[in-house]
Amino acid sequence: MAAKDLWTTDPRIELRAGPDFDLAELDRNGQPGWEGDKDDGEAYLPERGEEMSELQERLYAEGRDDGTRSVLLILQGLDTAGKGGIVRHVVGMVDPQGVALASFGVPTEEELSHHYLWRIEKELPPAGRIGVFDRSHYEDVLVVRVDELVPEEVWRERYDEINAWEKKVVEGGTTIIKVALMVSYAEQGERLMERLERPDKYWKFNPGDIDTRSKWPAFQEAYADVFRLTSTDHAPWYVVPADKKWYSRLAVTEILTRTLEEMDLGWPEADFDVEEMRKALDALEESHR
Amino acid sequence: MAAKDLWTTDPRIELRAGPDFDLAELDRNGQPGWEGDKDDGEAYLPERGEEMSELQERLYAEGRDDGTRSVLLILQGLDTAGKGGIVRHVVGMVDPQGVALASFGVPTEEELSHHYLWRIEKELPPAGRIGVFDRSHYEDVLVVRVDELVPEEVWRERYDEINAWEKKVVEGGTTIIKVALMVSYAEQGERLMERLERPDKYWKFNPGDIDTRSKWPAFQEAYADVFRLTSTDHAPWYVVPADKKWYSRLAVTEILTRTLEEMDLGWPEADFDVEEMRKALDALEESHR
Repeated sequence: MAAKDLWTTDPRIELRAGPDFDLAELDRNGQPGWEGDKDDGEAYLPERGEEMSELQERLYAEGRDDGTRSVLLILQGLDTAGKGGIVRHVVGMVDPQGVALASFGVPTEEELSHHYLWRIEKELPPAGRIGVFDRSHYEDVLVVRVDELVPEEVWRERYDEINAWEKKVVEGGTTIIKVALMVSYAEQGERLMERLERPDKYWKFNPGDIDTRSKWPAFQEAYADVFRLTSTDHAPWYVVPADKKWYSRLAVTEILTRTLEEMDLGWPEADFDVEEMRKALDALEESHR
Repeated sequence: MAAKDLWTTDPRIELRAGPDFDLAELDRNGQPGWEGDKDDGEAYLPERGEEMSELQERLYAEGRDDGTRSVLLILQGLDTAGKGGIVRHVVGMVDPQGVALASFGVPTEEELSHHYLWRIEKELPPAGRIGVFDRSHYEDVLVVRVDELVPEEVWRERYDEINAWEKKVVEGGTTIIKVALMVSYAEQGERLMERLERPDKYWKFNPGDIDTRSKWPAFQEAYADVFRLTSTDHAPWYVVPADKKWYSRLAVTEILTRTLEEMDLGWPEADFDVEEMRKALDALEESHR
């Protein structure tokens, strides 16, 4: 029983931020491009996941051969936006051996003693892998800007620097997919409150989350600039409404899968003589008898 | 519709190797402890996986709090034994964020310039994680012994050294689970031949696999010594018949899940004043209106 594909538009077109993207206009409870409901989405997700998983295996095989290509999924979003859910429910659908996961928290002293891209560069995925960044160098123009951790003239220059750096990464064979999960203020409030109401969720709550929430308008402004200034042709931003978790997971799965489909991934040729190896294997059977 | 748990014996008892373990007697096509068939096993696997996944989240939460415990699953087995399948289908059932995966191939020159445990130690899982080793320091008494890469007096001393090292790791808070996937000679032959018959499997084949297969008796002897000499109370070996892939996956899932169950994992207490945080969150709602 095949679930139906109810995408009316490619979400990579539907959700892509351009230079005139208006974050204030985004319906964070929306489901752009998907004409089904939640049940349709939840039925389609694992089916699409199977396809994504097969493509991932081809990418991995290519990397084991002599391929140089990789994929990097960058996840950004404020607390409770669902970054962890994407890792668990979307990335979790592919073979863990093909994934290189990195999470970027408050920088360590060693990290701070380097250029802000130093710790990021170190975690770039090797050939054949799907790298996943839970937060990234974009924190260096988000929390760093909002909390004034460096002077404005410093973070102002970073947008161009990031674009140039990402271009270099793409030229090295990595397809970059940047996903911002955008929850509404009301939804974030409910999700934070849930963490304070369920003892099995306490560990996900951090008192600093309240402080961050109190700076909501400044973060929205910082995100708007990120989308305006760093959604390039080589590394576009997809701004995903995230009040409906099922939608954001479905959309990211679709973006990843379509990206992999377009990479035209085959299976590597044998770099040995297949017939000769079959004979060698057969000969071994004989001798074992 | 809950699938039935058809384990008649705890596989940790059923499959555990002791000092008098006889590898030659192992039925590699068997399914010790499981009284159901393949369909029963495949129905029960995801159900048990859900439970394993919840326990993994508790372990992760504990690690994020101030816990020091972790789990380390060491996977050993000859080519085609199904190590990759365990990672994909068993480990793949838990949140990738909670897993620390390491794969040990032929040592690099840098690795060879250090003690053989150096590269292993570096990959030990941090608190809260499930570490998974695809091959391990046991290669240093398996392939190294069979291929005579070091003199006998050197590898002979390693069994005791490994036991002592693992004891230290366990004392540091890591529960070690050692799983050896044992396929029969005939089944390995079929799996290798399949890799030579399907172009989508060529990439998994390595001409060296034929050479390794030709040394089957020597590898069996080396494995037998591993089980005889390093299945300790602090880090026992589970020898899993692996001709039936569904059985080996089911058995490893069960061993992992029962191990996690016995760790008595709760949810961390809040390290903040919950009531105060709720009020602060409420106050933020007021001010936003």
